[in-house]
Amino acid sequence: MILAPGATIGILGSGQLGRMLAMAALKLGLRCHIYAPEPEAPAYDAASARTVASFDDEAALARFAESVDVITYEFENVPIACVEFLARLRPVRPDARALAVSQDRLAEKTFLRGLGLATAPFRPVDAAAALGPALAEIGRLAVLKTRRLGYDGKGQAMIREGSDLEALHRKLGGGPMIVEGFVAFDCEASVIAARSLEGAMVAFDLCENEHDRHILARTHVPARVAPEIETAAKTLAAKALEALDYVGVLAIELFVARDGAGAERLVVNEIAPRVHNSGHWTIEGAQTSQFEQHIRAIAGWPLGATARRGRVEMVNLIGEQADEWRDILAQPEQSLHLYGKLEARPGRKMGHVTRVFPEGPRNV
Amino acid sequence: MILAPGATIGILGSGQLGRMLAMAALKLGLRCHIYAPEPEAPAYDAASARTVASFDDEAALARFAESVDVITYEFENVPIACVEFLARLRPVRPDARALAVSQDRLAEKTFLRGLGLATAPFRPVDAAAALGPALAEIGRLAVLKTRRLGYDGKGQAMIREGSDLEALHRKLGGGPMIVEGFVAFDCEASVIAARSLEGAMVAFDLCENEHDRHILARTHVPARVAPEIETAAKTLAAKALEALDYVGVLAIELFVARDGAGAERLVVNEIAPRVHNSGHWTIEGAQTSQFEQHIRAIAGWPLGATARRGRVEMVNLIGEQADEWRDILAQPEQSLHLYGKLEARPGRKMGHVTRVFPEGPRNV
Repeated sequence: MILAPGATIGILGSGQLGRMLAMAALKLGLRCHIYAPEPEAPAYDAASARTVASFDDEAALARFAESVDVITYEFENVPIACVEFLARLRPVRPDARALAVSQDRLAEKTFLRGLGLATAPFRPVDAAAALGPALAEIGRLAVLKTRRLGYDGKGQAMIREGSDLEALHRKLGGGPMIVEGFVAFDCEASVIAARSLEGAMVAFDLCENEHDRHILARTHVPARVAPEIETAAKTLAAKALEALDYVGVLAIELFVARDGAGAERLVVNEIAPRVHNSGHWTIEGAQTSQFEQHIRAIAGWPLGATARRGRVEMVNLIGEQADEWRDILAQPEQSLHLYGKLEARPGRKMGHVTRVFPEGPRNV
Repeated sequence: MILAPGATIGILGSGQLGRMLAMAALKLGLRCHIYAPEPEAPAYDAASARTVASFDDEAALARFAESVDVITYEFENVPIACVEFLARLRPVRPDARALAVSQDRLAEKTFLRGLGLATAPFRPVDAAAALGPALAEIGRLAVLKTRRLGYDGKGQAMIREGSDLEALHRKLGGGPMIVEGFVAFDCEASVIAARSLEGAMVAFDLCENEHDRHILARTHVPARVAPEIETAAKTLAAKALEALDYVGVLAIELFVARDGAGAERLVVNEIAPRVHNSGHWTIEGAQTSQFEQHIRAIAGWPLGATARRGRVEMVNLIGEQADEWRDILAQPEQSLHLYGKLEARPGRKMGHVTRVFPEGPRNV
């Protein structure tokens, strides 16, 4: 199924990623129909149609599917049953398998290890009693995480010497969890890559990410890593894309750590089957944005060039940081993006700011 | 009246310029409400609200005004009465005077001459009988134009030796006209400039334009003119913006001609009180796009930087040229824009393509 201009893309989810996907679709002469349970949300304003309904409302889902040509999602916690239901009516890209792998930290880590990729050591924790033996194997400095529904540091807790394991397990809800050995990393990075319907693959340059209280604060590109590490990141992204027979943009979060000899090595943290906050710099900073790249891929169109336009820095506006919008607008070298959220709650991503710096004649 | 993020901009007109204005508003966390008589049109898909009604429907206009915070327009043939009606309810930027001056070729030329700017020699032609005496004064190689509603070469006719003047006058509808001496130009150019609510002014670099059958075919920047001509263009734009106490983006179409000594000189052809086709290159090619610049200005916000990102070329996709969309997408250095028009009629602007080339270290 290859879309023609004028076709409609259905997007599950109504946040800022959906908003920016819909804007990229508009640039290419396509329409979007947003499906989400929220009555007010950032993506609706950029779409030509909306369905406000829950992800298990099969009648609403069926009507939605009939009104669109292809379906995608802008967050990875869409219920698998919803995507499986829709996939019987219209192509869903990326498909349910990519979603399933990324929704469950155990499935994700198992998938990554199956590809021969390095991850933190991990053990499943089905009950609190399993935690002690797991820690005995992977070491006491570790992170306990719920298998599902974690994001921006939610659903996880650090385990140190002397931590009350039962209390931590209870605090995270007592459900299925995973415990991961703590990775002492030099920096965090991410690679945003795409695969077309025909199987072509491209990756944007490696992004270096700084987090503040588990929320992405700042991304800069190029990442300050050895060239072979950048190449390795793109290679492992291609491996994951191929293994999932993936169509669309995939983000892979990485730790840049050191091996025994002190050389840099990559440890995969997690994958997101969607456009990603650490790829926002591509709007101004790359020949094709991650949003347009995703739209091209799921439309069955050729992927765009990922050439970078300079050295790029992206800073998130979290909560009341967005109150500085007027000062930011007055800085000539800054490009302001606001997501249309009217209430600036703490920890809420309200917008971002991008700066592109010249990098010298060879990298223009 | 300064807008806050989340505010709503009302746009009169529903074409591709409105669509791209609405996309720029989305980037900045603003909403758009489109008002136009067409039931289907490019701008609606990018807006959070639409009113489909005629420009003389005062009840619909009043409801529209009440639902928005500021009003602008994306084409210059909005009836003055409509804008005057709306201006009693909400700020309209740019205001009715800018619209009036640009709607009537006689008022426009008179305004430009009043600023001391060079235009083609011109005479009003109220009836066919006035044409002969006017030509005796300005010369026989001339262009007869309707005073109103001309665009893309519509409403004008070339007068040569031996032309049947009465027949030409009749063919253009017999209404109020203007006859202009033909300007033998080296090239056509345009300057896109903006003025903020506080009176700050900036201009994008001069664009050089090539037309095909009176429709813009190709724009490239920088224009191949002497540096003092580029400066003169920006200076005359500032003069016009000041004189009109203008708020928003203004486009001025220019001829680059030769004076008696063979030096380049500028002759103003016409002004458009809006974003302009020859400014589409700014989306990829400048720090701030003309669309964001207009939104910033009418929102009462600081203007953005106009720094150019390289040598830029923009090619319009007219009619069935847009059928080449897939080949264009496959060219990595080309950025494709489609306007969501489903029917490719001859002469219809369906989209455009931009390419940015490196220009060397000084102009990064």
